[in-house]
Amino acid sequence: MSGDRGPETCVPAALAVACEHPDVEFTLVGREADRPADWRERAPRNAAWLAASEVVAMNDHPREALRHKKHSSMRRAVDLVKARTAHACVSAGNTGALMATAHFVLKMIPGVERPAIASWIPSRSGHTFMLDLGANATATPAQLRQFAVMGSALAEDRSAAPGPRVGLLNIGEEDIKGDETVQKAHELLSASGLNYVGFVEGHDVFGDDVDVVVTDGFTGNVALKTMEGTARYIAQAMREEFTRGAMRKLGALLAAPALGALRSRLDPRRYNGASMVGLNGVVIKSHGSADGFAFQRAIEVAVAEARDDLPARIAAKLDAPAVT
Amino acid sequence: MSGDRGPETCVPAALAVACEHPDVEFTLVGREADRPADWRERAPRNAAWLAASEVVAMNDHPREALRHKKHSSMRRAVDLVKARTAHACVSAGNTGALMATAHFVLKMIPGVERPAIASWIPSRSGHTFMLDLGANATATPAQLRQFAVMGSALAEDRSAAPGPRVGLLNIGEEDIKGDETVQKAHELLSASGLNYVGFVEGHDVFGDDVDVVVTDGFTGNVALKTMEGTARYIAQAMREEFTRGAMRKLGALLAAPALGALRSRLDPRRYNGASMVGLNGVVIKSHGSADGFAFQRAIEVAVAEARDDLPARIAAKLDAPAVT
Repeated sequence: MSGDRGPETCVPAALAVACEHPDVEFTLVGREADRPADWRERAPRNAAWLAASEVVAMNDHPREALRHKKHSSMRRAVDLVKARTAHACVSAGNTGALMATAHFVLKMIPGVERPAIASWIPSRSGHTFMLDLGANATATPAQLRQFAVMGSALAEDRSAAPGPRVGLLNIGEEDIKGDETVQKAHELLSASGLNYVGFVEGHDVFGDDVDVVVTDGFTGNVALKTMEGTARYIAQAMREEFTRGAMRKLGALLAAPALGALRSRLDPRRYNGASMVGLNGVVIKSHGSADGFAFQRAIEVAVAEARDDLPARIAAKLDAPAVT
Repeated sequence: MSGDRGPETCVPAALAVACEHPDVEFTLVGREADRPADWRERAPRNAAWLAASEVVAMNDHPREALRHKKHSSMRRAVDLVKARTAHACVSAGNTGALMATAHFVLKMIPGVERPAIASWIPSRSGHTFMLDLGANATATPAQLRQFAVMGSALAEDRSAAPGPRVGLLNIGEEDIKGDETVQKAHELLSASGLNYVGFVEGHDVFGDDVDVVVTDGFTGNVALKTMEGTARYIAQAMREEFTRGAMRKLGALLAAPALGALRSRLDPRRYNGASMVGLNGVVIKSHGSADGFAFQRAIEVAVAEARDDLPARIAAKLDAPAVT
């Protein structure tokens, strides 16, 4: 157990979710020292503690963590998924180390070359799934097609609607724009059998014309962080304008119900829990700085994906049997 | 004269700016039919009309426009800059055609391989300049260094503060992340003599740690459109929350001063007017859908860059004489 806030945040969040899902078994993996003193009294029947001797630090180099921390809580949690003792694992720890460990231990679904990070983004029509959000710095056309298949399976799974509309992120909607990679990926996707709607642009993620937006990890990560930056910038501007003098503060007080509803609606914690797709197992990455509410959302994502066996669905979509 | 709104919007905006700058000569280039019937009465002394026989349409292919529309208003406006009859040109028309025409007619500043589109983005510290926003789909490390030099000159020019802090957009702040291109560009920038602060991420554009953010045109364009999409999404959510029932509407009324100030502060029209940098001449691209207020801002950007002779400053920074 790691993350910026550590076990103090993760443990109570996990126990809360365990109470909400009595039919699901939860294993908390962490150092013995991190187990709460009152564990026996607090833990529900369906929660167990598995002791690990060390923890991957947030600033450990992914390769070093993989090589030298074979008894870390992260490694042991992923090993549980490999052994099918667990159906999913969730971590708020070091993203690179989690990706490297999961890739090494679980291996890829046949037909997928690289894992991708996928998440949902709020949109006018509900939400859009976007990938890759940073697992890889580059992607080949074939890999972009694989991302599209995985994103499609994910969207189908979560929305329970068949044939999600898949778009390829580009800098113009005309067929002539973009570099060679997106042009070739466009050809592959047009012939993929997916419900491919063609090129989409950065603002389309929030619209209602597409359910899955596919891009390379560099562009996807920049887009995601740009969204976060824009939202934070606007939130700060709002705070400033609503606290500029007594009259403005009074206005804010009277507008409190609308402002509160807006805050809750745009709360990024609601969208916590990114899926590392393409692996032979469900691995969910929580934001490192997630608080209890946010971490619970990430665990809920893991429960949903495990129930639906997303890796098997992806494998089926790729027309190759899952190696599990 | 083109753009989504055409001369009905551009002409009054240009005449308004002409009245504000009696020391600047304005030439409006458009078809005779587009000249207002009451031109003689309305135009101030420092505004002239130059007739063009045709106009580049918003959906013309850039190469076709360049080849076959040599008497278009766009081409004639750029020709004026080439002939030094004008010090800058502004267009709300077809971006690709403007870029192709300006590139062909004006040529590049020695030492710059490709033009880039640069714009300012509001940030906590005032604003950040970002480039390339979509002139090119890809960029080599050497071109990213050239973008950095141009962005630095632009920021210095507009902010009148020497040594603007330049950051390179990447998906992590650690030196190990990102693909080969950004890694090599990082090396070039570290040795460039610019005030290079290293890698920055998508959210840093809005922070106060960097003045110029450099990236390739694909990533920059996606980031820009993602910002626009996020802002529009939040604005719509605000409208919805503030109109949900009578009490909410009353709250909005009482919060009107703060909401109005917020709207004006975040108004994207204030940031209209992107610079096509790297050319031997000042060329400003207005958003195609710009209204009069926004188009005036784009003309103001052109006036400022022409006064400061930005191309000469860029050439000086590149240690090569400007060919003008």
